[in-house]
Amino acid sequence: MAVTSEADSLCVVLVGTRNPLNIGAAARAMSNFGLRRLRVVNPYEVAFREARSAVDAAELLASAEDYKSVAEAVADCTLVVGTTAVRNRQLQHPLRRLECGARLIRKHLGAGRVALVFGSEKRGLANADFSHCHWLMRIPTAEEYPSMNLGQAVAICLYELVRDTKAVEPPEELRPATAAQVERITAMLFEALCASSYVKPGAAVSTNEKLRRQVRRLHLQADDAELWLGMLRTIAGKLRSGR
Amino acid sequence: MAVTSEADSLCVVLVGTRNPLNIGAAARAMSNFGLRRLRVVNPYEVAFREARSAVDAAELLASAEDYKSVAEAVADCTLVVGTTAVRNRQLQHPLRRLECGARLIRKHLGAGRVALVFGSEKRGLANADFSHCHWLMRIPTAEEYPSMNLGQAVAICLYELVRDTKAVEPPEELRPATAAQVERITAMLFEALCASSYVKPGAAVSTNEKLRRQVRRLHLQADDAELWLGMLRTIAGKLRSGR
Repeated sequence: MAVTSEADSLCVVLVGTRNPLNIGAAARAMSNFGLRRLRVVNPYEVAFREARSAVDAAELLASAEDYKSVAEAVADCTLVVGTTAVRNRQLQHPLRRLECGARLIRKHLGAGRVALVFGSEKRGLANADFSHCHWLMRIPTAEEYPSMNLGQAVAICLYELVRDTKAVEPPEELRPATAAQVERITAMLFEALCASSYVKPGAAVSTNEKLRRQVRRLHLQADDAELWLGMLRTIAGKLRSGR
Repeated sequence: MAVTSEADSLCVVLVGTRNPLNIGAAARAMSNFGLRRLRVVNPYEVAFREARSAVDAAELLASAEDYKSVAEAVADCTLVVGTTAVRNRQLQHPLRRLECGARLIRKHLGAGRVALVFGSEKRGLANADFSHCHWLMRIPTAEEYPSMNLGQAVAICLYELVRDTKAVEPPEELRPATAAQVERITAMLFEALCASSYVKPGAAVSTNEKLRRQVRRLHLQADDAELWLGMLRTIAGKLRSGR
């Protein structure tokens, strides 16, 4: 969805929203994920006005479109997806988990405009709203607390739509320490421990071998190896001079 | 993360949060995704008190633990992950996209407790906070608007951790209409169109073939086929009786 035209193809439709903070939060999440088309259907008049005049209101909010009905708000869309926390009530629509629904929406975005419809904070979408939808989608929340905050629900749906399903980190720039560096550290540590009387008389060989294994388990990086060597050298030097 | 012990293994740590609504939103998202361990480090005293006393405060908030330092808040964790919107600043830590970082966290959750650390709304985490982290994670936001609302950022991170990477919908219970049903509909539609003088004289055969193709493109389901047949039968009957 990095492509501008695809970002333009997704409309977020908020139906009957009451809280201006939620309209603002939806707008902010849209900006975060590169979307532009916010549509509101019968928000509480005051809420919409307040959200628009909020100091940190995204410019996106200024261009939000105000509709009198769901039918008008989704008229130019070729796929209309409703969101719901409902799971058990007899739904007349296919209900998809967000992970699966998002896949279908992504596929559709190249072909036509998609409306993603969210209901009010208190009641969610009504059956009349659902009847404008092709199918419904739910966020996989815990059964005991299924109902999400509106702004958070919008944010999660948009994230799932833009997330990179094949994201792979560039391999970390690892530069492991050489055996010689590791061996120098082992030797310096051994010296410091001898000088500190940590190494018991007669146990020098077995202690040295133990240390060698232990230091190798640290999987030191080259740069870090130099740092450790410097610290140990200073400590060992101080111990020698103090004797 | 459906397993209780794993849900218990993840701590959300909020550092220096100012807005009680954000503490509440983080707590709500945790409940939504079945998590229990909320820790706050030096929140604005008033914000924490307000969040706790909010009418709809999750019980989770009542059991939130209050710490004086990041070190104390993450002391029992074996992996500490910081979150940041920063991308360009020279970071001293590996920075992973959420999609990749979440994979590592999921792997770790079986073995030990993980702290997921979020900074304040204004400044995010400071370098001193970062130094307690093994690595950092960022939500893949748009470059122009990288910084997310705190409650939404927490919600998205938790969603990514619980989302089912292998979620597959149970196949829809499709019961396609039989060819006989589709043919009955075609015939009834043809009858209604003849009775409405839609079919031009001399074009009956070609119109009938066109309709047959058209009706088949609808991919009707068995139940819907019966509904359509009933509607068309009623319309055709009315047309016949009106002649």
